[in-house]
Amino acid sequence: MLERIRIVLIGTSHPGNIGGTARAMHNMGLADLALVAPRCEPLTADTVSRASGADALVHQACTVASLEEAVSDCTLVVGASARSRTLPWPMITPRALGERLPEELAAPASRVALVFGREDSGLTNAELQRCHAHVHIPTNPDFSSLNLAAAVQVLAYECRLAWLDRQASGEATDDDGDGQPLASHDELEHYFAHLEHTLVAIGFHDPATPRQLMARLRRFTLRARPERMELNILRGILSATERQAERGDDG
Amino acid sequence: MLERIRIVLIGTSHPGNIGGTARAMHNMGLADLALVAPRCEPLTADTVSRASGADALVHQACTVASLEEAVSDCTLVVGASARSRTLPWPMITPRALGERLPEELAAPASRVALVFGREDSGLTNAELQRCHAHVHIPTNPDFSSLNLAAAVQVLAYECRLAWLDRQASGEATDDDGDGQPLASHDELEHYFAHLEHTLVAIGFHDPATPRQLMARLRRFTLRARPERMELNILRGILSATERQAERGDDG
Repeated sequence: MLERIRIVLIGTSHPGNIGGTARAMHNMGLADLALVAPRCEPLTADTVSRASGADALVHQACTVASLEEAVSDCTLVVGASARSRTLPWPMITPRALGERLPEELAAPASRVALVFGREDSGLTNAELQRCHAHVHIPTNPDFSSLNLAAAVQVLAYECRLAWLDRQASGEATDDDGDGQPLASHDELEHYFAHLEHTLVAIGFHDPATPRQLMARLRRFTLRARPERMELNILRGILSATERQAERGDDG
Repeated sequence: MLERIRIVLIGTSHPGNIGGTARAMHNMGLADLALVAPRCEPLTADTVSRASGADALVHQACTVASLEEAVSDCTLVVGASARSRTLPWPMITPRALGERLPEELAAPASRVALVFGREDSGLTNAELQRCHAHVHIPTNPDFSSLNLAAAVQVLAYECRLAWLDRQASGEATDDDGDGQPLASHDELEHYFAHLEHTLVAIGFHDPATPRQLMARLRRFTLRARPERMELNILRGILSATERQAERGDDG
Protein backbone atom coordinates (compact mmCIF):
# COMPACT_ATOMS: atom_id res chain seq x y z
CA MET A 1 0.00 0.00 0.00
CA LEU A 2 2.68 2.52 1.00
CA GLU A 3 4.56 2.08 -2.28
CA ARG A 4 1.55 3.51 -4.08
CA ILE A 5 1.55 6.81 -2.22
CA ARG A 6 3.43 9.61 -3.96
CA ILE A 7 4.68 12.77 -2.31
CA VAL A 8 4.62 15.71 -4.72
CA LEU A 9 6.54 18.90 -3.90
CA ILE A 10 5.77 21.93 -6.02
CA GLY A 11 8.23 24.79 -6.52
CA THR A 12 10.45 23.98 -3.54
CA SER A 13 13.09 26.67 -2.82
CA HIS A 14 15.35 25.01 -0.23
CA PRO A 15 17.30 21.83 -0.98
CA GLY A 16 17.33 21.12 2.78
CA ASN A 17 13.56 20.74 2.68
CA ILE A 18 13.84 18.21 -0.13
CA GLY A 19 16.36 16.26 1.97
CA GLY A 20 14.17 16.51 5.07
CA THR A 21 11.20 15.33 3.02
CA ALA A 22 13.16 12.31 1.77
CA ARG A 23 14.14 11.40 5.32
CA ALA A 24 10.59 11.75 6.62
CA MET A 25 9.27 9.64 3.76
CA HIS A 26 11.83 6.88 4.13
CA ASN A 27 11.29 6.83 7.92
CA MET A 28 7.62 6.16 7.33
CA GLY A 29 8.14 3.66 4.50
CA LEU A 30 7.23 5.89 1.55
CA ALA A 31 9.50 5.96 -1.48
CA ASP A 32 7.81 7.74 -4.40
CA LEU A 33 8.84 11.40 -4.61
CA ALA A 34 8.01 13.80 -7.45
CA LEU A 35 9.40 17.32 -7.78
CA VAL A 36 7.41 19.80 -9.81
CA ALA A 37 9.41 22.74 -11.16
CA PRO A 38 11.74 23.04 -8.19
CA ARG A 39 13.09 26.56 -7.63
CA CYS A 40 16.46 25.22 -6.46
CA GLU A 41 19.01 22.58 -7.34
CA PRO A 42 17.34 19.55 -5.74
CA LEU A 43 20.49 17.64 -4.88
CA THR A 44 23.04 19.66 -2.90
CA ALA A 45 25.17 19.07 0.18
CA ASP A 46 22.27 20.46 2.21
CA THR A 47 19.90 17.91 0.71
CA VAL A 48 22.21 15.04 1.56
CA SER A 49 22.83 16.33 5.07
CA ARG A 50 19.14 16.70 5.91
CA ALA A 51 18.28 13.40 4.18
CA SER A 52 20.68 11.69 6.58
CA GLY A 53 20.92 8.52 4.53
CA ALA A 54 17.69 8.79 2.57
CA ASP A 55 19.06 10.75 -0.39
CA ALA A 56 18.46 7.76 -2.67
CA LEU A 57 14.83 8.93 -2.75
CA VAL A 58 15.96 12.24 -4.23
CA HIS A 59 18.14 10.48 -6.79
CA GLN A 60 15.16 8.39 -7.83
CA ALA A 61 12.68 11.27 -7.73
CA CYS A 62 11.10 12.26 -10.98
CA THR A 63 11.29 15.94 -11.81
CA VAL A 64 8.55 17.35 -14.00
CA ALA A 65 7.32 20.71 -15.13
CA SER A 66 3.70 20.62 -14.00
CA LEU A 67 1.41 19.17 -11.37
CA GLU A 68 -0.55 17.42 -14.14
CA GLU A 69 2.48 15.39 -15.16
CA ALA A 70 3.28 14.50 -11.55
CA VAL A 71 -0.15 13.10 -10.78
CA SER A 72 -1.31 11.82 -14.15
CA ASP A 73 -1.57 8.19 -12.99
CA CYS A 74 -3.05 8.97 -9.58
CA THR A 75 -6.57 7.93 -8.61
CA LEU A 76 -6.73 10.30 -5.66
CA VAL A 77 -4.97 13.66 -5.38
CA VAL A 78 -4.97 15.45 -2.06
CA GLY A 79 -3.47 18.91 -1.62
CA ALA A 80 -2.02 20.17 1.66
CA SER A 81 -3.62 23.49 2.36
CA ALA A 82 -3.74 25.97 5.18
CA ARG A 83 -7.41 26.58 4.47
CA SER A 84 -9.70 26.29 1.53
CA ARG A 85 -9.67 29.64 -0.17
CA THR A 86 -12.00 31.32 -2.62
CA LEU A 87 -14.05 28.26 -3.29
CA PRO A 88 -14.83 25.86 -0.45
CA TRP A 89 -13.42 22.42 -1.23
CA PRO A 90 -13.79 19.08 0.48
CA MET A 91 -11.51 19.34 3.50
CA ILE A 92 -10.29 16.33 5.39
CA THR A 93 -8.11 15.97 8.44
CA PRO A 94 -4.82 14.07 8.26
CA ARG A 95 -6.39 11.33 10.36
CA ALA A 96 -9.41 11.00 8.07
CA LEU A 97 -7.03 10.88 5.12
CA GLY A 98 -5.20 7.96 6.74
CA GLU A 99 -8.45 6.17 7.40
CA ARG A 100 -9.44 6.53 3.76
CA LEU A 101 -6.20 5.19 2.32
CA PRO A 102 -6.70 1.42 2.64
CA GLU A 103 -9.94 1.63 0.68
CA GLU A 104 -8.54 4.12 -1.81
CA LEU A 105 -5.59 1.85 -2.45
CA ALA A 106 -7.46 -1.44 -2.45
CA ALA A 107 -7.29 -1.79 -6.22
CA PRO A 108 -3.76 -2.66 -7.35
CA ALA A 109 -3.67 0.06 -9.98
CA SER A 110 -4.79 2.82 -7.65
CA ARG A 111 -2.33 5.51 -6.66
CA VAL A 112 -2.60 8.43 -4.22
CA ALA A 113 -0.72 11.73 -4.50
CA LEU A 114 -0.17 14.05 -1.56
CA VAL A 115 0.71 17.47 -2.92
CA PHE A 116 2.67 20.16 -1.03
CA GLY A 117 3.15 23.73 -2.18
CA ARG A 118 5.88 26.36 -2.03
CA GLU A 119 7.53 27.27 1.27
CA ASP A 120 6.41 30.88 0.94
CA SER A 121 3.04 30.69 -0.74
CA GLY A 122 1.70 27.13 -0.70
CA LEU A 123 -0.44 25.89 -3.57
CA THR A 124 -2.13 28.22 -6.03
CA ASN A 125 -5.89 28.18 -6.41
CA ALA A 126 -5.47 26.48 -9.78
CA GLU A 127 -3.39 23.73 -8.19
CA LEU A 128 -5.78 23.32 -5.26
CA GLN A 129 -8.61 22.92 -7.68
CA ARG A 130 -6.85 19.99 -9.32
CA CYS A 131 -7.12 18.08 -6.07
CA HIS A 132 -9.95 15.77 -5.06
CA ALA A 133 -9.72 17.04 -1.56
CA HIS A 134 -7.62 19.27 0.66
CA VAL A 135 -5.98 18.15 3.84
CA HIS A 136 -5.34 20.60 6.63
CA ILE A 137 -2.90 19.87 9.43
CA PRO A 138 -4.31 21.52 12.54
CA THR A 139 -1.99 24.25 13.81
CA ASN A 140 -1.77 27.10 16.23
CA PRO A 141 -3.72 29.90 14.48
CA ASP A 142 -1.10 32.40 15.66
CA PHE A 143 1.75 30.50 14.03
CA SER A 144 0.34 28.24 11.41
CA SER A 145 3.05 27.83 8.81
CA LEU A 146 4.65 24.41 9.14
CA ASN A 147 8.06 23.62 7.77
CA LEU A 148 7.61 21.71 4.49
CA ALA A 149 9.41 18.57 5.67
CA ALA A 150 7.49 18.70 8.97
CA ALA A 151 4.18 18.77 7.08
CA VAL A 152 5.30 15.80 4.98
CA GLN A 153 6.35 14.08 8.24
CA VAL A 154 2.88 14.42 9.75
CA LEU A 155 1.02 13.14 6.69
CA ALA A 156 3.54 10.34 6.10
CA TYR A 157 3.09 9.34 9.74
CA GLU A 158 -0.67 9.11 9.23
CA CYS A 159 -0.08 6.98 6.12
CA ARG A 160 2.10 4.61 8.11
CA LEU A 161 -0.43 4.35 10.95
CA ALA A 162 -3.16 3.52 8.46
CA TRP A 163 -0.97 0.85 6.92
CA LEU A 164 -0.07 -0.62 10.32
CA ASP A 165 -3.75 -0.66 11.29
CA ARG A 166 -4.57 -2.56 8.16
CA GLN A 167 -1.77 -5.05 8.80
CA ALA A 168 -3.02 -5.54 12.33
CA SER A 169 -6.65 -6.03 11.39
CA GLY A 170 -5.77 -8.21 8.42
CA GLU A 171 -3.69 -10.78 10.23
CA ALA A 172 -2.17 -11.30 13.63
CA THR A 173 -4.21 -11.52 16.73
CA ASP A 174 -1.36 -9.64 18.27
CA ASP A 175 0.55 -11.62 20.76
CA ASP A 176 2.09 -8.88 22.79
CA GLY A 177 5.16 -10.97 23.08
CA ASP A 178 7.50 -9.96 25.79
CA GLY A 179 4.83 -10.06 28.51
CA GLN A 180 5.85 -11.81 31.69
CA PRO A 181 3.18 -13.84 33.46
CA LEU A 182 1.15 -11.72 35.82
CA ALA A 183 0.82 -12.75 39.43
CA SER A 184 -2.26 -14.81 40.15
CA HIS A 185 -4.88 -13.81 42.64
CA ASP A 186 -3.53 -16.43 45.02
CA GLU A 187 0.00 -15.18 44.76
CA LEU A 188 -1.19 -11.66 45.43
CA GLU A 189 -3.10 -12.72 48.52
CA HIS A 190 -0.05 -14.54 49.88
CA TYR A 191 1.95 -11.43 49.26
CA PHE A 192 -0.54 -9.20 51.09
CA ALA A 193 -0.56 -11.58 54.06
CA HIS A 194 3.23 -11.58 54.11
CA LEU A 195 3.28 -7.78 53.84
CA GLU A 196 0.88 -7.32 56.75
CA HIS A 197 2.87 -9.74 58.88
CA THR A 198 6.09 -7.85 58.16
CA LEU A 199 4.54 -4.47 58.85
CA VAL A 200 3.43 -5.73 62.24
CA ALA A 201 6.90 -7.15 62.90
CA ILE A 202 8.59 -3.82 62.26
CA GLY A 203 6.05 -1.98 64.40
CA PHE A 204 4.56 0.00 61.50
CA HIS A 205 1.11 -1.50 61.55
CA ASP A 206 -1.29 -2.32 64.34
CA PRO A 207 -4.19 -4.50 63.14
CA ALA A 208 -6.22 -3.13 66.06
CA THR A 209 -6.12 0.36 64.51
CA PRO A 210 -5.73 -0.39 60.83
CA ARG A 211 -6.53 3.09 59.49
CA GLN A 212 -7.02 1.65 55.99
CA LEU A 213 -3.32 0.97 55.67
CA MET A 214 -3.67 -2.43 54.05
CA ALA A 215 -6.47 -1.21 51.81
CA ARG A 216 -4.27 1.59 50.52
CA LEU A 217 -1.34 -0.74 49.91
CA ARG A 218 -3.62 -3.17 48.10
CA ARG A 219 -5.02 -0.52 45.85
CA PHE A 220 -1.57 0.75 45.01
CA THR A 221 -0.19 -2.73 44.31
CA LEU A 222 -3.13 -3.98 42.28
CA ARG A 223 -3.05 -0.88 40.15
CA ALA A 224 0.42 -1.90 38.99
CA ARG A 225 -0.78 -5.38 37.88
CA PRO A 226 2.35 -7.06 39.30
CA GLU A 227 4.12 -9.76 37.39
CA ARG A 228 4.94 -12.95 39.23
CA MET A 229 8.64 -12.15 39.18
CA GLU A 230 8.06 -8.72 40.68
CA LEU A 231 6.07 -10.23 43.48
CA ASN A 232 8.94 -12.61 44.17
CA ILE A 233 11.28 -9.64 44.54
CA LEU A 234 8.87 -7.91 46.90
CA ARG A 235 8.52 -11.04 49.01
CA GLY A 236 12.32 -11.33 49.13
CA ILE A 237 12.44 -7.81 50.52
CA LEU A 238 9.83 -8.69 53.15
CA SER A 239 11.81 -11.76 54.24
CA ALA A 240 15.02 -9.75 54.56
CA THR A 241 13.12 -7.15 56.57
CA GLU A 242 11.74 -9.79 58.91
CA ARG A 243 15.20 -11.20 59.53
CA GLN A 244 16.34 -7.71 60.53
CA ALA A 245 13.34 -7.33 62.81
CA GLU A 246 14.15 -10.63 64.52
CA ARG A 247 17.75 -9.62 65.03
CA GLY A 248 16.50 -6.33 66.47
CA ASP A 249 14.25 -8.13 68.91
CA ASP A 250 17.03 -10.45 69.99
CA GLY A 251 19.48 -7.59 70.50
CA MET B 1 -3.83 21.84 28.77
CA LEU B 2 -1.11 22.39 26.13
CA GLU B 3 0.72 24.90 28.34
CA ARG B 4 1.38 22.12 30.85
CA ILE B 5 3.21 19.89 28.38
CA ARG B 6 6.99 20.30 28.46
CA ILE B 7 9.33 19.20 25.70
CA VAL B 8 12.69 18.12 27.12
CA LEU B 9 15.69 17.74 24.81
CA ILE B 10 18.72 15.96 26.26
CA GLY B 11 22.25 16.51 24.96
CA THR B 12 21.25 18.02 21.62
CA SER B 13 24.22 18.50 19.23
CA HIS B 14 22.75 20.60 16.44
CA PRO B 15 21.33 24.09 17.02
CA GLY B 16 19.21 23.61 13.90
CA ASN B 17 17.33 20.82 15.65
CA ILE B 18 16.61 23.10 18.60
CA GLY B 19 15.24 25.68 16.18
CA GLY B 20 13.21 23.04 14.33
CA THR B 21 11.85 21.80 17.65
CA ALA B 22 10.80 25.31 18.66
CA ARG B 23 8.99 25.76 15.36
CA ALA B 24 7.23 22.40 15.62
CA MET B 25 6.17 23.19 19.19
CA HIS B 26 4.88 26.66 18.43
CA ASN B 27 3.02 25.36 15.36
CA MET B 28 1.20 22.91 17.60
CA GLY B 29 0.60 25.37 20.46
CA LEU B 30 3.25 24.10 22.88
CA ALA B 31 5.55 26.60 24.59
CA ASP B 32 7.49 24.96 27.42
CA LEU B 33 10.95 23.85 26.28
CA ALA B 34 13.72 22.54 28.53
CA LEU B 35 17.26 21.81 27.36
CA VAL B 36 19.29 19.34 29.37
CA ALA B 37 23.08 19.67 28.99
CA PRO B 38 23.00 20.68 25.32
CA ARG B 39 26.16 19.72 23.43
CA CYS B 40 26.00 22.86 21.32
CA GLU B 41 25.34 26.56 21.67
CA PRO B 42 21.51 26.50 21.69
CA LEU B 43 20.97 29.89 20.10
CA THR B 44 22.83 30.36 16.82
CA ALA B 45 21.98 31.66 13.37
CA ASP B 46 21.00 28.10 12.48
CA THR B 47 18.57 27.94 15.39
CA VAL B 48 16.90 31.17 14.36
CA SER B 49 16.73 30.12 10.73
CA ARG B 50 15.09 26.75 11.46
CA ALA B 51 12.81 28.27 14.14
CA SER B 52 11.45 30.54 11.42
CA GLY B 53 9.87 32.98 13.87
CA ALA B 54 9.54 30.69 16.89
CA ASP B 55 12.93 31.42 18.42
CA ALA B 56 11.24 33.11 21.40
CA LEU B 57 10.70 29.56 22.70
CA VAL B 58 14.45 29.00 22.72
CA HIS B 59 15.04 32.34 24.45
CA GLN B 60 12.54 31.32 27.14
CA ALA B 61 13.77 27.73 27.39
CA CYS B 62 15.27 26.70 30.65
CA THR B 63 18.66 25.04 30.41
CA VAL B 64 19.60 22.60 33.17
CA ALA B 65 22.28 20.04 33.84
CA SER B 66 20.21 16.93 34.41
CA LEU B 67 16.97 15.23 33.45
CA GLU B 68 15.94 15.29 37.12
CA GLU B 69 16.00 19.08 37.19
CA ALA B 70 14.07 19.32 33.95
CA VAL B 71 11.20 17.13 35.12
CA SER B 72 11.21 17.59 38.89
CA ASP B 73 7.66 19.04 38.96
CA CYS B 74 6.20 16.66 36.36
CA THR B 75 3.53 14.11 37.24
CA LEU B 76 4.00 12.08 34.06
CA VAL B 77 7.33 11.63 32.29
CA VAL B 78 7.34 9.90 28.90
CA GLY B 79 10.55 9.11 27.05
CA ALA B 80 10.79 8.81 23.28
CA SER B 81 12.46 5.51 22.56
CA ALA B 82 13.22 3.42 19.51
CA ARG B 83 12.49 0.26 21.47
CA SER B 84 12.55 -0.79 25.09
CA ARG B 85 15.96 -2.24 25.73
CA THR B 86 17.31 -4.57 28.43
CA LEU B 87 14.26 -4.35 30.62
CA PRO B 88 10.87 -4.06 28.92
CA TRP B 89 9.07 -0.91 30.03
CA PRO B 90 5.47 0.20 29.43
CA MET B 91 5.36 1.23 25.76
CA ILE B 92 2.64 3.42 24.32
CA THR B 93 1.95 4.66 20.85
CA PRO B 94 1.92 8.39 20.08
CA ARG B 95 -1.83 8.14 19.57
CA ALA B 96 -2.42 6.42 22.90
CA LEU B 97 -0.27 9.08 24.53
CA GLY B 98 -2.49 11.79 23.06
CA GLU B 99 -5.61 10.00 24.23
CA ARG B 100 -4.24 9.85 27.77
CA LEU B 101 -3.32 13.52 28.01
CA PRO B 102 -6.67 15.12 28.88
CA GLU B 103 -7.05 12.87 31.89
CA GLU B 104 -3.40 13.17 32.88
CA LEU B 105 -3.68 16.94 32.76
CA ALA B 106 -7.11 17.25 34.38
CA ALA B 107 -5.68 18.36 37.73
CA PRO B 108 -4.37 21.93 37.50
CA ALA B 109 -1.03 21.06 39.14
CA SER B 110 -0.31 18.15 36.83
CA ARG B 111 2.44 18.48 34.27
CA VAL B 112 3.62 16.14 31.50
CA ALA B 113 7.17 15.92 30.16
CA LEU B 114 8.01 14.41 26.77
CA VAL B 115 11.71 13.58 26.77
CA PHE B 116 13.87 13.26 23.65
CA GLY B 117 17.45 11.95 23.59
CA ARG B 118 20.61 12.69 21.68
CA GLU B 119 20.64 12.75 17.87
CA ASP B 120 23.23 9.95 17.75
CA SER B 121 22.34 7.73 20.67
CA GLY B 122 18.92 8.59 22.07
CA LEU B 123 18.24 8.25 25.78
CA THR B 124 20.44 6.19 28.09
CA ASN B 125 19.00 3.27 30.02
CA ALA B 126 19.25 5.31 33.22
CA GLU B 127 17.24 8.10 31.60
CA LEU B 128 14.66 5.69 30.20
CA GLN B 129 14.21 4.20 33.65
CA ARG B 130 13.25 7.58 35.02
CA CYS B 131 10.23 7.61 32.74
CA HIS B 132 6.77 6.29 33.56
CA ALA B 133 6.39 5.05 30.02
CA HIS B 134 8.13 5.07 26.68
CA VAL B 135 6.57 6.25 23.47
CA HIS B 136 7.62 4.76 20.17
CA ILE B 137 6.87 6.47 16.88
CA PRO B 138 6.27 3.70 14.36
CA THR B 139 8.91 3.79 11.64
CA ASN B 140 10.28 1.83 8.74
CA PRO B 141 12.44 -0.85 10.40
CA ASP B 142 15.07 -0.39 7.69
CA PHE B 143 15.43 3.33 8.36
CA SER B 144 14.12 4.06 11.78
CA SER B 145 16.04 7.05 13.05
CA LEU B 146 13.82 10.12 12.88
CA ASN B 147 15.21 13.62 12.84
CA LEU B 148 14.86 15.07 16.34
CA ALA B 149 12.59 17.96 15.32
CA ALA B 150 10.52 15.55 13.21
CA ALA B 151 9.97 13.31 16.24
CA VAL B 152 8.93 16.34 18.29
CA GLN B 153 6.62 17.34 15.42
CA VAL B 154 4.80 14.01 15.47
CA LEU B 155 4.27 13.95 19.23
CA ALA B 156 3.34 17.64 19.37
CA TYR B 157 0.82 16.97 16.61
CA GLU B 158 -0.75 14.19 18.68
CA CYS B 159 -0.87 16.58 21.67
CA ARG B 160 -2.71 19.15 19.59
CA LEU B 161 -5.17 16.59 18.22
CA ALA B 162 -5.93 15.43 21.76
CA TRP B 163 -6.49 19.01 22.84
CA LEU B 164 -8.75 19.74 19.84
CA ASP B 165 -10.72 16.56 20.56
CA ARG B 166 -11.26 17.68 24.11
CA GLN B 167 -12.38 21.14 22.97
CA ALA B 168 -14.79 19.55 20.51
CA SER B 169 -16.24 17.12 23.02
CA GLY B 170 -17.64 20.03 24.97
CA GLU B 171 -14.83 21.20 27.20
CA ALA B 172 -14.63 18.10 29.37
CA THR B 173 -16.21 18.65 32.72
CA ASP B 174 -14.39 15.60 33.94
CA ASP B 175 -12.70 16.55 37.10
CA ASP B 176 -12.76 12.99 38.21
CA GLY B 177 -13.25 14.21 41.72
CA ASP B 178 -11.78 11.75 44.11
CA GLY B 179 -8.33 11.97 42.51
CA GLN B 180 -5.58 12.43 45.04
CA PRO B 181 -2.53 14.37 43.92
CA LEU B 182 0.00 12.14 42.23
CA ALA B 183 3.57 12.05 43.44
CA SER B 184 5.89 14.32 41.48
CA HIS B 185 9.07 13.13 39.83
CA ASP B 186 11.09 14.63 42.70
CA GLU B 187 9.06 12.83 45.33
CA LEU B 188 9.44 9.58 43.44
CA GLU B 189 13.19 9.99 43.14
CA HIS B 190 13.48 10.66 46.88
CA TYR B 191 11.47 7.55 47.47
CA PHE B 192 13.71 5.44 45.20
CA ALA B 193 16.82 6.77 46.94
CA HIS B 194 15.28 5.95 50.30
CA LEU B 195 14.24 2.49 49.08
CA GLU B 196 17.71 1.68 47.80
CA HIS B 197 19.27 2.88 51.03
CA THR B 198 16.93 0.67 53.05
CA LEU B 199 17.50 -2.38 50.87
CA VAL B 200 21.22 -2.00 51.42
CA ALA B 201 20.66 -1.57 55.16
CA ILE B 202 18.72 -4.82 55.41
CA GLY B 203 21.29 -6.66 53.32
CA PHE B 204 18.91 -7.32 50.42
CA HIS B 205 20.70 -5.21 47.83
CA ASP B 206 24.35 -4.82 46.95
CA PRO B 207 24.90 -1.86 44.61
CA ALA B 208 28.07 -3.58 43.41
CA THR B 209 25.98 -6.40 41.90
CA PRO B 210 22.70 -4.64 41.17
CA ARG B 211 21.17 -7.32 38.91
CA GLN B 212 18.54 -4.79 37.74
CA LEU B 213 16.87 -4.86 41.13
CA MET B 214 16.30 -1.10 41.31
CA ALA B 215 15.26 -0.97 37.67
CA ARG B 216 12.62 -3.63 38.31
CA LEU B 217 11.35 -1.87 41.42
CA ARG B 218 11.22 1.41 39.54
CA ARG B 219 9.26 -0.10 36.72
CA PHE B 220 6.80 -1.69 39.09
CA THR B 221 6.32 1.46 41.15
CA LEU B 222 6.05 3.86 38.22
CA ARG B 223 3.47 1.63 36.61
CA ALA B 224 1.20 2.15 39.61
CA ARG B 225 1.45 5.98 39.28
CA PRO B 226 1.69 6.45 43.08
CA GLU B 227 -0.26 9.16 44.81
CA ARG B 228 1.65 11.42 47.14
CA MET B 229 -0.10 9.89 50.13
CA GLU B 230 0.80 6.38 49.06
CA LEU B 231 4.41 7.38 48.74
CA ASN B 232 4.28 8.77 52.27
CA ILE B 233 3.05 5.42 53.52
CA LEU B 234 5.81 3.59 51.66
CA ARG B 235 8.43 5.94 53.07
CA GLY B 236 7.01 5.39 56.52
CA ILE B 237 7.50 1.66 56.02
CA LEU B 238 11.09 2.23 54.90
CA SER B 239 11.84 4.36 57.97
CA ALA B 240 10.39 1.71 60.27
CA THR B 241 12.47 -0.92 58.47
CA GLU B 242 15.63 1.12 58.88
CA ARG B 243 15.02 1.53 62.59
CA GLN B 244 14.78 -2.24 62.84
CA ALA B 245 17.97 -2.65 60.84
CA GLU B 246 19.78 -0.27 63.16
CA ARG B 247 18.56 -2.11 66.21
CA GLY B 248 19.71 -5.35 64.58
CA ASP B 249 23.15 -3.92 63.96
CA ASP B 250 23.41 -2.66 67.53
CA GLY B 251 22.32 -5.99 68.99
